[in-house]
Amino acid sequence: MNTTSNALRQQLEQIIAITPFARLMGASVREIGDGIAELEVEVKPELMHQHHGFVHGAIVGFMADSACAWAAASLAGDVVTAEYKLNLLAPVKGERLRAQGRVLKASGRTLVVQADVFAIDQGREKHVAVALASIAKVGAA
Amino acid sequence: MNTTSNALRQQLEQIIAITPFARLMGASVREIGDGIAELEVEVKPELMHQHHGFVHGAIVGFMADSACAWAAASLAGDVVTAEYKLNLLAPVKGERLRAQGRVLKASGRTLVVQADVFAIDQGREKHVAVALASIAKVGAA
Amino acid sequence: MNTTSNALRQQLEQIIAITPFARLMGASVREIGDGIAELEVEVKPELMHQHHGFVHGAIVGFMADSACAWAAASLAGDVVTAEYKLNLLAPVKGERLRAQGRVLKASGRTLVVQADVFAIDQGREKHVAVALASIAKVGAA
Amino acid sequence: MNTTSNALRQQLEQIIAITPFARLMGASVREIGDGIAELEVEVKPELMHQHHGFVHGAIVGFMADSACAWAAASLAGDVVTAEYKLNLLAPVKGERLRAQGRVLKASGRTLVVQADVFAIDQGREKHVAVALASIAKVGAA
Repeated sequence: MNTTSNALRQQLEQIIAITPFARLMGASVREIGDGIAELEVEVKPELMHQHHGFVHGAIVGFMADSACAWAAASLAGDVVTAEYKLNLLAPVKGERLRAQGRVLKASGRTLVVQADVFAIDQGREKHVAVALASIAKVGAA
Repeated sequence: MNTTSNALRQQLEQIIAITPFARLMGASVREIGDGIAELEVEVKPELMHQHHGFVHGAIVGFMADSACAWAAASLAGDVVTAEYKLNLLAPVKGERLRAQGRVLKASGRTLVVQADVFAIDQGREKHVAVALASIAKVGAA
Repeated sequence: MNTTSNALRQQLEQIIAITPFARLMGASVREIGDGIAELEVEVKPELMHQHHGFVHGAIVGFMADSACAWAAASLAGDVVTAEYKLNLLAPVKGERLRAQGRVLKASGRTLVVQADVFAIDQGREKHVAVALASIAKVGAA
Repeated sequence: MNTTSNALRQQLEQIIAITPFARLMGASVREIGDGIAELEVEVKPELMHQHHGFVHGAIVGFMADSACAWAAASLAGDVVTAEYKLNLLAPVKGERLRAQGRVLKASGRTLVVQADVFAIDQGREKHVAVALASIAKVGAA
């Protein structure tokens, strides 16, 4: 990770520090820069489970949405999610979740971003969700 | 609300009571039955905000997804979200959020459900998000 | 339909007349104005069917996308579809298809629009698809 | 391409031959098998353009939807599209369109598939659209 990415990472960590929901989730930045962002959370069952004992879909949505928004922010600065679609591929369980966002289109005022979410269960990683999002630049006139 | 709906409501309140994330959100059932579900949460800024001071998109996603899943459950019993798409219509702020889900198609093994999310800000209600979801019956063959 | 709508309708009919694919489909404007658009096509089996004898999904997609774009255009002038999601609710058959688009959010540079598609089969109308779309203003800087 | 894929390709070409809309589009199979499908059309301006002189979004939707359905069919036999979301990344122009679908999840009764659509303009290929779809097995009880 280069200097630019390190600056981005510090900015993002400061944003997480003042974002109650992201702090509650315990989101940490693994990588950010050049249209790519990766984040991770530890699964806290007492916080994140639904009634079948799997991770709640809202947590998966948070991971996908954040990965998309952060990947877009690495290219476009201040952004806001306009819309996203999430397909759940499998019940989500395990000790950690990892999400990676990749910008597919950066031109214009809206970035199109894809995210993949993985669950790490007893050390084995499984692809549990995929998302497509439109992320809008803020204040771009 | 008729007897069937009251039974459904009690079932759903029991499910919420054992669903850590829904309990954390403080989700309450306003209506359920005949393919319609309505839920409400009070906005807790220390829990639900993002860094601009608006409600985090993950909370809006939780409201939309839950309204869709609960509306589907009122017709089909045990269900799981297969996919959803969420369009955010405005920054979300206020003291309460309300979401309503309505089943559009109940035949077959997958229900198609629409949800609208509203923010109540100083007593005025605003339409802040709309979602379309596919909800799958569990164990239906 | 008021004067404004009549002007819009004429503009749209001129656009259809120079749009090969819309002309091929035989799309006709039923209503346009104030964020609402309705269009209709006659089903031509030799053109529009897939191999099971139902109307091809691409025709349904065309109806939904056009209804969204035209509804947006009635408020915002020249527009382009940025993204849409389509849920198919039933196999599509009959003698005519009708689609209605309604703008849900018109502020900013992107309009959010919903569309419903209906098939008229032996005179009975059936709801066969629903869509949510983001439609971008062209040249709005 | 192995024997299985050749058999699949022949089946698919027979289906295209009896599918009026696919025949009208002039869709040809480039690859099919193991959860992947690739198709191609030549752009016929007199058929496929919209009024700005670009390829109509309905053609792009047809390419994405077909690539997803065919990729799913290569694993699951007879299928039907339940829903899809399409993000358009750039105005579509050129002499040919190519779409590739890849199954992301094949378990259960619904397959999740991603598609990418490319336009070949004066020999240069450009990524013009991305889609996520849910494809349902037909008659799987």
